[in-house]
Amino acid sequence: MKVGILTMSDKGSRGEREDKSSEEIIEKIKQIQGQVEYYKIIPDDFDVIKEELFYCCDMLELDLVLTTGGTGFSPRDNTPEATMAVVQKQVPGIPEAMRMKSFSKTPKAMLSRAVAGIRGDTLIINLPGSPKGVRECLEVVLPVLPHGIDILTGRGGECGGK
Amino acid sequence: MKVGILTMSDKGSRGEREDKSSEEIIEKIKQIQGQVEYYKIIPDDFDVIKEELFYCCDMLELDLVLTTGGTGFSPRDNTPEATMAVVQKQVPGIPEAMRMKSFSKTPKAMLSRAVAGIRGDTLIINLPGSPKGVRECLEVVLPVLPHGIDILTGRGGECGGK
Amino acid sequence: MKVGILTMSDKGSRGEREDKSSEEIIEKIKQIQGQVEYYKIIPDDFDVIKEELFYCCDMLELDLVLTTGGTGFSPRDNTPEATMAVVQKQVPGIPEAMRMKSFSKTPKAMLSRAVAGIRGDTLIINLPGSPKGVRECLEVVLPVLPHGIDILTGRGGECGGK
Repeated sequence: MKVGILTMSDKGSRGEREDKSSEEIIEKIKQIQGQVEYYKIIPDDFDVIKEELFYCCDMLELDLVLTTGGTGFSPRDNTPEATMAVVQKQVPGIPEAMRMKSFSKTPKAMLSRAVAGIRGDTLIINLPGSPKGVRECLEVVLPVLPHGIDILTGRGGECGGK
Repeated sequence: MKVGILTMSDKGSRGEREDKSSEEIIEKIKQIQGQVEYYKIIPDDFDVIKEELFYCCDMLELDLVLTTGGTGFSPRDNTPEATMAVVQKQVPGIPEAMRMKSFSKTPKAMLSRAVAGIRGDTLIINLPGSPKGVRECLEVVLPVLPHGIDILTGRGGECGGK
Repeated sequence: MKVGILTMSDKGSRGEREDKSSEEIIEKIKQIQGQVEYYKIIPDDFDVIKEELFYCCDMLELDLVLTTGGTGFSPRDNTPEATMAVVQKQVPGIPEAMRMKSFSKTPKAMLSRAVAGIRGDTLIINLPGSPKGVRECLEVVLPVLPHGIDILTGRGGECGGK
């Protein structure tokens, strides 16, 4: 499984903040034998995010792109909008499940505007900005990712009973 | 209640697979005195699904269209996109409730991309492809369908307190 | 926190029905020190709702607009569509959390088509039409509103760990 990580952070992209969230993603992705083939810290800019997502899907042909940050209420939080602009299919169940899990710990979870979707053979999932949020949300989706990616890329078998 | 069933299946439409999911729907629909007035197995093709949905809503003027199949991660899973292309109003609470219920049994539930929506006087609901998934999800929505359809078609009374 | 209330009701706008839902909102909003600066009963008309929402966001520059009514299955229920037409960002977690809470009391909760979103510095949240529904849903979102509005308007601090 070829994985890309995009960290959305104005400060991080200027080198003013350490990116602990991507370290969390890298750690977790090992558990499902994923290979991180691309990683970049980019500013919270709609067009920049969109271009990077296009690059990850269409040029690098990654199986999975995990974004961290930019899903909240700040005027510079543009990750869900940029993601929606590039995906061809939405996967609402993934953010629903992540929010449901986080919500059981803190009501602030409902302010996450994260989305997930498919472009070509690539699954894109928005994760929160904080390392703790990344960890919690990845624990929710990791168990189903290998199966989902197998179906998406045609590497898996057929769905039972379809 | 006039009901239509559309089974999305490339194999089924070529007669290469039995359609057990629609039998499950027919069984369940009897419980709420629904009349199945239209049933067709069609290929997982965006345009074909869209045309069939238009036909069910605008020509047959059905109250409820239940689709089965085509809501997953395969490149040929186009049911949610075709549904979104014909509905005028979205009903996000129905797929949310179905996924929440399925999720309590299997985390794979979060990969269902099912949607529901309204076109004119017709409610369209995407159900999963497997007979077991159909049964589970219908059990979630059946209790509210008669009320919902009554409001939609103007046959019901007024909402309390509105 | 500057708050606007829009009650969607054909009957209410003709003076044929008392608006108990807005009273419920006013009562609850006091608990988080919100100031109700605008209140209007308007007909369930897509264009009217849209114009009022534009006015509340762009002219009055309110922090929060709470709508009540018009989120159901009736042909005149247009509040979510009008809301989606004015927001620049969606906040799916808020209606998800409200429906999840209501759903634990009644399965009819899944028929609520409520949405929430952001236009400029204004958060718009659709609430149900009934006073009881308003109360239940506001209890879900009130605890996170001050934080969410602070981030949105730039009055709050930075998100931890972002």
